[in-house]
Amino acid sequence: MSEPRLKHFGWGREGSGLTPAEEATVLRRAEQQFGPPAEPEVKPPRLADIKLAPPRLNVPASLPFCSTEHYDRAAHTYGKAFPEYTRGLNGDYAGAPDVVAYPRNEDDIVAVLDWAGGAQASVTPFGGGSSVVGGVEPKRDGARYRAAVTVDLRDLGRVLEVDKTSRAARIEAGAFGPALEGELKPHGLTLRHFPQSFECSTLGGWIATRSGGHFATLYTHIDDLVESLRVVTPKGILETRRLPGSGAGPSPDRLMIGSEGILGIITQAWMRLQDRPKFRGGGAVHFPSFFAAGKALRAVAQAGLFPANCRILDPQEAFNTGASDGRSAVMVLAFESGDHPVEAWLTRALECCADHGGKPEQADRADALREGAAGAWRNAFIRMPFARERLIQRGLIGDTFETAITWERFEHFHDMVKAATERAIREATGRAGQVTCRCTHVYPDGPAPYFTFHAAGRHGELSAQWHAIKSAGLDAVIANGGTVTHHHAVGRDHRPWYDRQRPPLFAAALKAAKAALDPQGLLNPGVLIDP
Amino acid sequence: MSEPRLKHFGWGREGSGLTPAEEATVLRRAEQQFGPPAEPEVKPPRLADIKLAPPRLNVPASLPFCSTEHYDRAAHTYGKAFPEYTRGLNGDYAGAPDVVAYPRNEDDIVAVLDWAGGAQASVTPFGGGSSVVGGVEPKRDGARYRAAVTVDLRDLGRVLEVDKTSRAARIEAGAFGPALEGELKPHGLTLRHFPQSFECSTLGGWIATRSGGHFATLYTHIDDLVESLRVVTPKGILETRRLPGSGAGPSPDRLMIGSEGILGIITQAWMRLQDRPKFRGGGAVHFPSFFAAGKALRAVAQAGLFPANCRILDPQEAFNTGASDGRSAVMVLAFESGDHPVEAWLTRALECCADHGGKPEQADRADALREGAAGAWRNAFIRMPFARERLIQRGLIGDTFETAITWERFEHFHDMVKAATERAIREATGRAGQVTCRCTHVYPDGPAPYFTFHAAGRHGELSAQWHAIKSAGLDAVIANGGTVTHHHAVGRDHRPWYDRQRPPLFAAALKAAKAALDPQGLLNPGVLIDP
Repeated sequence: MSEPRLKHFGWGREGSGLTPAEEATVLRRAEQQFGPPAEPEVKPPRLADIKLAPPRLNVPASLPFCSTEHYDRAAHTYGKAFPEYTRGLNGDYAGAPDVVAYPRNEDDIVAVLDWAGGAQASVTPFGGGSSVVGGVEPKRDGARYRAAVTVDLRDLGRVLEVDKTSRAARIEAGAFGPALEGELKPHGLTLRHFPQSFECSTLGGWIATRSGGHFATLYTHIDDLVESLRVVTPKGILETRRLPGSGAGPSPDRLMIGSEGILGIITQAWMRLQDRPKFRGGGAVHFPSFFAAGKALRAVAQAGLFPANCRILDPQEAFNTGASDGRSAVMVLAFESGDHPVEAWLTRALECCADHGGKPEQADRADALREGAAGAWRNAFIRMPFARERLIQRGLIGDTFETAITWERFEHFHDMVKAATERAIREATGRAGQVTCRCTHVYPDGPAPYFTFHAAGRHGELSAQWHAIKSAGLDAVIANGGTVTHHHAVGRDHRPWYDRQRPPLFAAALKAAKAALDPQGLLNPGVLIDP
Repeated sequence: MSEPRLKHFGWGREGSGLTPAEEATVLRRAEQQFGPPAEPEVKPPRLADIKLAPPRLNVPASLPFCSTEHYDRAAHTYGKAFPEYTRGLNGDYAGAPDVVAYPRNEDDIVAVLDWAGGAQASVTPFGGGSSVVGGVEPKRDGARYRAAVTVDLRDLGRVLEVDKTSRAARIEAGAFGPALEGELKPHGLTLRHFPQSFECSTLGGWIATRSGGHFATLYTHIDDLVESLRVVTPKGILETRRLPGSGAGPSPDRLMIGSEGILGIITQAWMRLQDRPKFRGGGAVHFPSFFAAGKALRAVAQAGLFPANCRILDPQEAFNTGASDGRSAVMVLAFESGDHPVEAWLTRALECCADHGGKPEQADRADALREGAAGAWRNAFIRMPFARERLIQRGLIGDTFETAITWERFEHFHDMVKAATERAIREATGRAGQVTCRCTHVYPDGPAPYFTFHAAGRHGELSAQWHAIKSAGLDAVIANGGTVTHHHAVGRDHRPWYDRQRPPLFAAALKAAKAALDPQGLLNPGVLIDP
């Protein structure tokens, strides 16, 4: 691959980041909110300055695709969770894997699993490393797990087969978003799954974590786009049948989707594709309040119109991303189709919006999506992770959590979660911060609220402050009936709340299933369930 | 309940069946095809004539909701699978359960599971008993399973809560179709899940078997309509959280949906509802051939229009059900909405049809669905089970099997399955029969073909003849890449093919999960996996 390699610290690939202009904007916004920098800048460690313990394993010559190189180990130490950033910023790379494997085929994966089992090494599957929940941190405890091996799927990144008739493709799990879309484009097809991490995450990672993508309705999660799967487990290969639908027992795919690497390593999948859109319509709709926008969101979702985009931003979130002047809430609304003009759909959705005071910005222009409020929001959204990584160097805490809740509880839920998070910011940092909300996906029975918080922290305490704030938010999420995650996954960071949400007997069933597929408990110990 | 009780033999409730006029039509059609009756009529046994062994268990006084009455045991001996009918017709009720429990609440279910465990009795959950795959036959082997208890959920049939805002209701698993729709109607809501068995099947049965319902696209299976579940397992109660969407680990609901009673007894569910439709459009579209109709079906499915109904019938199937003169294939096409007029959707779908030679019968009339070809087909569809039960008394074999396949294999698949089934009919019965096909549900990546076969059998050999024919059909289904069932479930009858289709490692995981929830293996032994 000719692309630059992933950074050893921070978001994306080497050379990518905020432009100077973007950086200036981000820092100016932060100063408007929190005043001039109170904390010294802490710069990320240079690769050469990172200290790593010698690898605890010797790689046999039979596994030439395994590396113990400094870069490989450093770059696979962390995902992108906030506490990982704080440790990385402090130069703490003690958790680095001993070995990083880059399998070239399934046989290599089988071989590395066999070897790791014999060596009492944990195995961490790794796609793009964009986990924000501690899902790719190597596990080592000196006892049961004497060493840690990370398996990076980057060399299994091809589109192997395209079936235009059924609109499906067989794609290797290590394919990054841009690469797989690039290979599908000549066929007039697209997976149309664009998580925020699109450029630095992989198909296998999306499936393993139930990633949420482009579509705000209907095909929200990757789940529904999976036609069949191939998974290498320590007990062998599991492959499901390519079927458009089935009623034969509990779905094998659905056990693997969201299994976060604890049951096996997904190596390829037949994915359901879309025609590339030819018709588009939509734009931004402004509302007097977030809850007015919420009522319109419910109306659109329950109308059965299935917009591709239908996201609402509260006034502060809209302001922060340049989508409004901060006095209106905004709905980013878009229909698209590869088959037919979307006017009838859009017209009815705008009627639903008007019923709740929604005023379209420029609803009748097909290119409105790339301009105006909707376009501003979209650009800010994609650059967000770079801003987060920049601000933390100034001791500023910025993070998000997302959930889902049924409509009849939505407003109270929102207020409780927001208030709890705001309170925790004051308690943890001694001053007010900011908590904003948008709804990223929507279902007929409820929305998926996504909370963003900003706080001024102190170096040395960042991780504890972040933990206090996020815990308060998630405590409120769980106490008020939500899910600990709508699409960021559970990993290790969300375990305490997941454990309260998930039925204990399901945990018992999942643990038993894992023991059947991974009897030594090699794979991602501590993720989803205890090892 | 004031409804008549279920028949001890045959479809539906006591007093229901073909009208004399319908019976005359059914018998005339059969004579047109196979000539005058070659076999003597065999009448089903009267209830009083059925011999049952004494119950092998004494019911303790603490379980007053358990019955060993003659009717209760006889009426729970069989589902509605063809080989069950042949045994029932022969008066063979040796498999009758020893005890039938009618729990009044979850505590009763817990109590009966405890008692059955101590008594080494198998436990068969029973909704409406409409299984066509041997899913409700009691299991007894004299060793591990010394007796058999059937748990009939009919007294847990209420709608407990309705949430109009989120369009959802909490419904007990024993609710039959008409009863639950009756309770939802005053709220302006509907589950809109109408399997052929609607009148004699229950919500819990639908969920346990991944039933297929009203919607030909999108919400085809009950799966997507389940918001959360409560299940009593031998290890306790498992309850999932009410969420419109979640990305927290593998879905607990999806492990239970389709579990066919082997993991626990579903007692209630929050179900996602629809607004009652106010706008309708559609009708029948005639095509020169089944495959031309198939091409249109694919175009409509891939256009993202989501018709409520979009089923195609081959010319013979259309003829048999009065939907065409036998020279055209028919698409039954319908859009419906509780929110908006459906003209734009229907117009585009009819364009897709016209591209493949489809000619609408009366496309612009909103009531076309209840008349013409579409209406004729619908009526025939609902009365079909009664006809099947009547014809078997004359030694005529009629049965169905359904599957799903991706588009690029559809035509070849159809031809292979049809030819294999036709050949098997000739070999098993010595004369030609009839095999027809429709597609009952459709996805962007493929249709769900549904095969019906008719053959002239011989009393005494009916079961063997049926088995030879159905096996040949399913062998072809599996060999050519389909699923053993799209929505009829696996039960015990489909096990040999399910075992070939299902990844062995998924079987291992499912077995382990079952052992965690049902360590004694009490529940539905032999269904989906070996006990």
